Amino acid sequence: MKNIPWENKPEGKKDIIWRYSKNPIIDRYAIPTSNSIFNSAVVPFKDGFAGVFRCDNKAIQMNIFAGFSKNGLDWDINHEPIQMQSGNTEMIESDYKYDPRVTFIEDRYWITWCNGYNGPTIGIGYTFDFKEFYQCENAFLPFNRNGVLFPEKINGKYAMLSRPSDNGHTPFGDIFISYSPDMKYWGEHRCVMQVTPFEQSAWQCTKIGAGTVPILIDEGWLIIYHGVINTCNGFRYAMGTAILDENSPDIVKYRTKSYLLGPAATYEMVGDVPNVVFPCAALHDKDKDQIAIYYGAADTVTAIAFAKLSELINFTIKDSL
Amino acid sequence: MKNIPWENKPEGKKDIIWRYSKNPIIDRYAIPTSNSIFNSAVVPFKDGFAGVFRCDNKAIQMNIFAGFSKNGLDWDINHEPIQMQSGNTEMIESDYKYDPRVTFIEDRYWITWCNGYNGPTIGIGYTFDFKEFYQCENAFLPFNRNGVLFPEKINGKYAMLSRPSDNGHTPFGDIFISYSPDMKYWGEHRCVMQVTPFEQSAWQCTKIGAGTVPILIDEGWLIIYHGVINTCNGFRYAMGTAILDENSPDIVKYRTKSYLLGPAATYEMVGDVPNVVFPCAALHDKDKDQIAIYYGAADTVTAIAFAKLSELINFTIKDSL
Amino acid sequence: MKNIPWENKPEGKKDIIWRYSKNPIIDRYAIPTSNSIFNSAVVPFKDGFAGVFRCDNKAIQMNIFAGFSKNGLDWDINHEPIQMQSGNTEMIESDYKYDPRVTFIEDRYWITWCNGYNGPTIGIGYTFDFKEFYQCENAFLPFNRNGVLFPEKINGKYAMLSRPSDNGHTPFGDIFISYSPDMKYWGEHRCVMQVTPFEQSAWQCTKIGAGTVPILIDEGWLIIYHGVINTCNGFRYAMGTAILDENSPDIVKYRTKSYLLGPAATYEMVGDVPNVVFPCAALHDKDKDQIAIYYGAADTVTAIAFAKLSELINFTIKDSL
Amino acid sequence: MKNIPWENKPEGKKDIIWRYSKNPIIDRYAIPTSNSIFNSAVVPFKDGFAGVFRCDNKAIQMNIFAGFSKNGLDWDINHEPIQMQSGNTEMIESDYKYDPRVTFIEDRYWITWCNGYNGPTIGIGYTFDFKEFYQCENAFLPFNRNGVLFPEKINGKYAMLSRPSDNGHTPFGDIFISYSPDMKYWGEHRCVMQVTPFEQSAWQCTKIGAGTVPILIDEGWLIIYHGVINTCNGFRYAMGTAILDENSPDIVKYRTKSYLLGPAATYEMVGDVPNVVFPCAALHDKDKDQIAIYYGAADTVTAIAFAKLSELINFTIKDSL
Amino acid sequence: MKNIPWENKPEGKKDIIWRYSKNPIIDRYAIPTSNSIFNSAVVPFKDGFAGVFRCDNKAIQMNIFAGFSKNGLDWDINHEPIQMQSGNTEMIESDYKYDPRVTFIEDRYWITWCNGYNGPTIGIGYTFDFKEFYQCENAFLPFNRNGVLFPEKINGKYAMLSRPSDNGHTPFGDIFISYSPDMKYWGEHRCVMQVTPFEQSAWQCTKIGAGTVPILIDEGWLIIYHGVINTCNGFRYAMGTAILDENSPDIVKYRTKSYLLGPAATYEMVGDVPNVVFPCAALHDKDKDQIAIYYGAADTVTAIAFAKLSELINFTIKDSL
Amino acid sequence: MKNIPWENKPEGKKDIIWRYSKNPIIDRYAIPTSNSIFNSAVVPFKDGFAGVFRCDNKAIQMNIFAGFSKNGLDWDINHEPIQMQSGNTEMIESDYKYDPRVTFIEDRYWITWCNGYNGPTIGIGYTFDFKEFYQCENAFLPFNRNGVLFPEKINGKYAMLSRPSDNGHTPFGDIFISYSPDMKYWGEHRCVMQVTPFEQSAWQCTKIGAGTVPILIDEGWLIIYHGVINTCNGFRYAMGTAILDENSPDIVKYRTKSYLLGPAATYEMVGDVPNVVFPCAALHDKDKDQIAIYYGAADTVTAIAFAKLSELINFTIKDSL
Repeated sequence: MKNIPWENKPEGKKDIIWRYSKNPIIDRYAIPTSNSIFNSAVVPFKDGFAGVFRCDNKAIQMNIFAGFSKNGLDWDINHEPIQMQSGNTEMIESDYKYDPRVTFIEDRYWITWCNGYNGPTIGIGYTFDFKEFYQCENAFLPFNRNGVLFPEKINGKYAMLSRPSDNGHTPFGDIFISYSPDMKYWGEHRCVMQVTPFEQSAWQCTKIGAGTVPILIDEGWLIIYHGVINTCNGFRYAMGTAILDENSPDIVKYRTKSYLLGPAATYEMVGDVPNVVFPCAALHDKDKDQIAIYYGAADTVTAIAFAKLSELINFTIKDSL
Repeated sequence: MKNIPWENKPEGKKDIIWRYSKNPIIDRYAIPTSNSIFNSAVVPFKDGFAGVFRCDNKAIQMNIFAGFSKNGLDWDINHEPIQMQSGNTEMIESDYKYDPRVTFIEDRYWITWCNGYNGPTIGIGYTFDFKEFYQCENAFLPFNRNGVLFPEKINGKYAMLSRPSDNGHTPFGDIFISYSPDMKYWGEHRCVMQVTPFEQSAWQCTKIGAGTVPILIDEGWLIIYHGVINTCNGFRYAMGTAILDENSPDIVKYRTKSYLLGPAATYEMVGDVPNVVFPCAALHDKDKDQIAIYYGAADTVTAIAFAKLSELINFTIKDSL
Repeated sequence: MKNIPWENKPEGKKDIIWRYSKNPIIDRYAIPTSNSIFNSAVVPFKDGFAGVFRCDNKAIQMNIFAGFSKNGLDWDINHEPIQMQSGNTEMIESDYKYDPRVTFIEDRYWITWCNGYNGPTIGIGYTFDFKEFYQCENAFLPFNRNGVLFPEKINGKYAMLSRPSDNGHTPFGDIFISYSPDMKYWGEHRCVMQVTPFEQSAWQCTKIGAGTVPILIDEGWLIIYHGVINTCNGFRYAMGTAILDENSPDIVKYRTKSYLLGPAATYEMVGDVPNVVFPCAALHDKDKDQIAIYYGAADTVTAIAFAKLSELINFTIKDSL
Repeated sequence: MKNIPWENKPEGKKDIIWRYSKNPIIDRYAIPTSNSIFNSAVVPFKDGFAGVFRCDNKAIQMNIFAGFSKNGLDWDINHEPIQMQSGNTEMIESDYKYDPRVTFIEDRYWITWCNGYNGPTIGIGYTFDFKEFYQCENAFLPFNRNGVLFPEKINGKYAMLSRPSDNGHTPFGDIFISYSPDMKYWGEHRCVMQVTPFEQSAWQCTKIGAGTVPILIDEGWLIIYHGVINTCNGFRYAMGTAILDENSPDIVKYRTKSYLLGPAATYEMVGDVPNVVFPCAALHDKDKDQIAIYYGAADTVTAIAFAKLSELINFTIKDSL
Repeated sequence: MKNIPWENKPEGKKDIIWRYSKNPIIDRYAIPTSNSIFNSAVVPFKDGFAGVFRCDNKAIQMNIFAGFSKNGLDWDINHEPIQMQSGNTEMIESDYKYDPRVTFIEDRYWITWCNGYNGPTIGIGYTFDFKEFYQCENAFLPFNRNGVLFPEKINGKYAMLSRPSDNGHTPFGDIFISYSPDMKYWGEHRCVMQVTPFEQSAWQCTKIGAGTVPILIDEGWLIIYHGVINTCNGFRYAMGTAILDENSPDIVKYRTKSYLLGPAATYEMVGDVPNVVFPCAALHDKDKDQIAIYYGAADTVTAIAFAKLSELINFTIKDSL
Repeated sequence: MKNIPWENKPEGKKDIIWRYSKNPIIDRYAIPTSNSIFNSAVVPFKDGFAGVFRCDNKAIQMNIFAGFSKNGLDWDINHEPIQMQSGNTEMIESDYKYDPRVTFIEDRYWITWCNGYNGPTIGIGYTFDFKEFYQCENAFLPFNRNGVLFPEKINGKYAMLSRPSDNGHTPFGDIFISYSPDMKYWGEHRCVMQVTPFEQSAWQCTKIGAGTVPILIDEGWLIIYHGVINTCNGFRYAMGTAILDENSPDIVKYRTKSYLLGPAATYEMVGDVPNVVFPCAALHDKDKDQIAIYYGAADTVTAIAFAKLSELINFTIKDSL
């Protein structure tokens, strides 16, 4: 297995998750047309890594782009957005595409994103090679965001987390799970996690949404999600973790009361949308006990942070609500 | 076939749809616990009619009740709400149930309603006899309302209209269609009808929602839906019609620019929610060229109105947007 | 001079303004296409009366229609809306037209209305005969409503009252005056009347707007205007009076603290927009000391009320803020 | 003891509370200046009854007026508002006064009302004879409404229910209790009753407020309060009951899940504020097992309803949440 | 002609507009009383430059101040605000003055600004020498902002762009044009540019407003305007360009889909109002193919950016919507 | 007396208040669990200083912590929040505690804070030694914030400033005073200071709140308070001063029109809530003519600023509204 990006924890640092010292790893202007590159997803691919990136152009049109990297830190992002071919349906429109996630299941890389079809909903596509992409039916009716597939079937069905929303800057939002026999029809919707009472854990009291692809660990499915508090000057997005039951992932076994990474670096607090830390992907190496988390910062740039996988799991269990 | 309720158009009346002279047919206190009985659905059943009724009790808890009638005008509504057994899933919670529709497909009566499951979504159930009822998986994730099934499969699949919503008094809303091979998993979501521009047809410029079960006519599927305008003193709900393509019902062939019945009778203008006319069911007799439309009035009582089916269709074509 | 509509004050009645006993004088369905007929304006014309009426059709498209009456109570309203020809400009679009006022100045009848041009603003037109109508430049930029012309030039210029607004159900609004040398270019804008403090006169604390054409009396210009209070269940529109300085009509000499007619009859409290009394025109006969006020009721029908002109003036002076 | 107003329950009526057949008992124009007379309080006084009435005048200024009645149904209300003298403080301003309650404690009649002092708060005054009135310190800081005194000291202190609010049409609100040794300084604030979850009892899910003066019964303190649901067309106020612990009245022993009287009569559904039933006072006769409840209807008129005291208590216990 | 401020484009930079390396050129505390100096306008004057500056003082009172500069980069701003004398009207009040623009027409420097007169509207004044200033009638009724005069008459009339608004932080706004024969009366209002659909060009989808004085080029009138997107954490203002038809400037010939300068420097992203780039003036030299754009940054400081005029025009044509 | 923290005014600086050069003095992560430490209060204690600090933990739970310092700049803050014992009441719940103030009166240190009890209200406690803390009755009903005690009794009673609020990000707020004979019951509520008109002093036009404990000076009570303006991108908090009458502190003798310290340093403009300067305590030395003001910055860190006491007083008098 190739090495995932890594940098040791700074001396004396007590935090479970720490930032890469050279953040942000992708600048807002990294491709000629871009205004911002953030909320993006990467996976191991061949002898390196591939990814699907949200690059808003200077008209602030939102679209997703393929990119490649040898080391997971330096990225070549295509200058043209992904052109989809029809997958399991005739081609349907996409007014916009943003906030992609990528999951390898069985034989291909599945991509989910927020797809503009009479409002935001969850688009699904797949690729074998990050060159040819196929677009399938939207998973759900609008309005929905943050659709994240599990990396393997559960009880014989595909499973997806998502966050039902409204058609604006949704001031509410819980995480649900849905199942599909075929990536075309979805059902068996269950509520997984709700926002917390303000008094108990305010950083996640306004809305929450799935972030990274769930990682199967001994205790179940480890997820890294975002939570939002509505301050008098806007939303503040931070990052937490939870562990879902392996076979019944609508059961939350552990969920952090504390956020694990909140906006505190300048590139997280200043940008097109101040005070946003938004995880969309993670690479992990169980042997090395390493996890590298990719996250959008301030809706402007892409950053990376690291944790020891065991510490992250232990903290999730220990700090659980 | 039994006779549907009917009363001839009053002399000199030019309207396509006219009210029953003895409206409302069901009073708000028709059963001992009720605060209001409205937005309810009826179908032919045995030698008469059966229905599923929204009866809010005096705690303003919303639930659905079975009822029976010989003539479609005088109704005996059960005093206890429907108790569901599990259908195609383990029993899932229903925080509330309201706005039912009933459709006979193949061998049974399918019921859809607004089901409270972490917000409003579309509940599905069925009965063979209006005594035993079975609850299935919710069709969609929240937030959704006004789920209406087609009375037969289209291209081999069940088809349902619905209106994605938010978690409050939704100030927007278009009609979508979704398909299912099995009444459990749903997909192939398409937008059918959107709200109209204010200048063009203001009565349906804020939100619209499917009402009665589609009726197959020569021109396609006739639907009677509600439209809403947001006045400075609240929402005003009126009733219009449209005809959808038979095989591709996401294609709207005709849709009335004018409303066909709006709040103008006292029981429609005064009540728990003033100015509401909300169709949920229709009985029709093609031979007699008759249609009887059941609608909730002012979120308080149930009323009925009549039309000549041919006139209704012709008007829909002639007055089309 | 022809007789204006009149009915004596009911025995024992103490109110300054009293309703016509056969109100409403124009029903919501008075012409075949109409949903509602209200907020309309009338003037003496030939041996009777003519008017311009707001008739919303059943698509709830707003437009203005000419009408005629022998006695000012029974009206024949044209079934087709007014077709404008170009007046002092090339024809400009009107997305909608509503709330007309009519003023005779010099040689013709000037009409002002709320004109839809990228939002509501004040449209201007004129007619000599209520058959041919000519549309001029809009007086102002959007967003504006309730434009009312003075019946003669002031200091050599046309003068118009209006209420700057926003693009929705405006929750604020004061009355301004503007002047024009030519009915094409407008300027010298001055604030005339503002909303009142809640504690002082709450019925007019949310917004106010000019209603009838100003009447020149000894004390100055008598105007009948509407005032609005925002209750927890919506706006409530009532009617008051004020007297403006003859030569400097931005100076308010008297203004009633009390409303003179508020929604209390059923046709004023129940309708498409409950609790609206909205004056748009008045006929007066100084010799007989009579005034007849036309007003829209509940945004649905047209009604008329009467007062002794001298009592109305005296009350305005005596009850002044 | 004098007879309280009474009318027997109509034959066959099952409701616990029934309306007086001649409602409303006080018309909106019952005194010359009034626009509306509602949300008012009465007590036994001498050989009849006295009361303090909210009469909004035609400027919609809110003030309180004394009134007298022989039979509790026919009222003579003073034409001038109550003029306060200073009680336990120098005179403080009252921008407005509304929604009075009256309680006899020890030697005098205490009046509480919503007092405008930089926002709504609870004013306190007293009278011995309903001729001379004395105004004391406001009980609380703004913003507060619906202050209701207990008719006797509890644990040696005066006790008052109230509903903390905001400075507008407050969309939230729970009932609290506060204590005072001297009617001047208040403290020991405790939450008594909160709004209910929508699914459980929606009529009281938006806000609640104390209504009538608590009545000491065997089970504790019987209170009649209002609850509000926010429909898509505004607030709907209904009436329920609760029983508080005699010595620790912040403990709710019983509280109705159902409303007992909701807006259903025309004068409750139509008026300045549609759909309001708002109890402010009750007369009871334990020997005759009678209670007469005074309530404002549609913020416009005053009405009365009756119940058998024992039935009311039994229902409160049986229907308790 | 004197030299306009200039700095060559940094090596390798691809952007059409680039920032001055020593930005901001005017600090928030540049005069003793100021809290912020921004959204200001400059013109060539004598052997240097003069300008009118928005300086909010430390009470956050908004006013306009004259200033002078030899090189257009280093400015001496008067410590006292401009005192107006009456121009073409008696002096009218100005509750506040902000966001000035300056245009030389015929024989004098015309100044337009957002003038507080019962809400924001467009004030007009002139000066010959930047010492004596004369205030004229407001161009329009409230509510309006961003009034910008054309530098010469069009078809014999003065022409002004403006943005009708509401009385708060207006969440909408299109650019209109109006004409005047005399700088006193205005009419012939036409809509010039509207906000764009979110999917097409989101940076200008919430509101737009004219910025710099139009520059006559071969293709018509080049304007530099601001556009706004409403993110979940507030408005973000960026800068774009358009070219209007020379003789019918309500016709937009070209308009950039992309923004040309958006908030990305710290002084643009951090300040009293984060994420604001707001152009108010430009100096250009056609011979040298240079343009220098003055803009407010974060509602706090004044900055300058440069472009090659030909590149700016070419981009506007090429990137047009 | 011990030395209060001090740093001389920078050469050439004209501001009355200047920042400490090493701000912030307390970092957001100064204790292991903290997300932010701000809006905190200090007093002289023994041979140094003690304080009560608002430390939000990483679950964003708000609580107050004791801390100690030798020099007022370097602080040791306890890692565990203050555990209260019951004071003058049985222990009442605190859903959260934030924004403490500390005042020494007679024999002990009184602490007030925003206490979560069915919404925010003013909690009261005391300590003799900053080790044992006693919690008393809440001063007021919800909703209230910014309760600040006077350091001595006034006319024999305890006196407290506070700001009645709502249950969210209150968009309004004036300062009131209340009195208590015993720290248990409160009354004699008077309005002290209201927000200012926008045109007059916009930085304090949305809401204001007491900050530091009043300081008795020759002219009366000097208070340092915060004022808020609502910009299009959120609230901006700045700091001003006022002088209240010594014996009747509801009388404002002087109040600055200008703010004295506004968000301009990076740590004030960037953080969890951008653009916040929030004073909660001050140390002063009349002999040395020094005052040191502690304030929260950006709801994230704690900073300190200095002034010459005489200059501060003179400015307050000279710049008074």
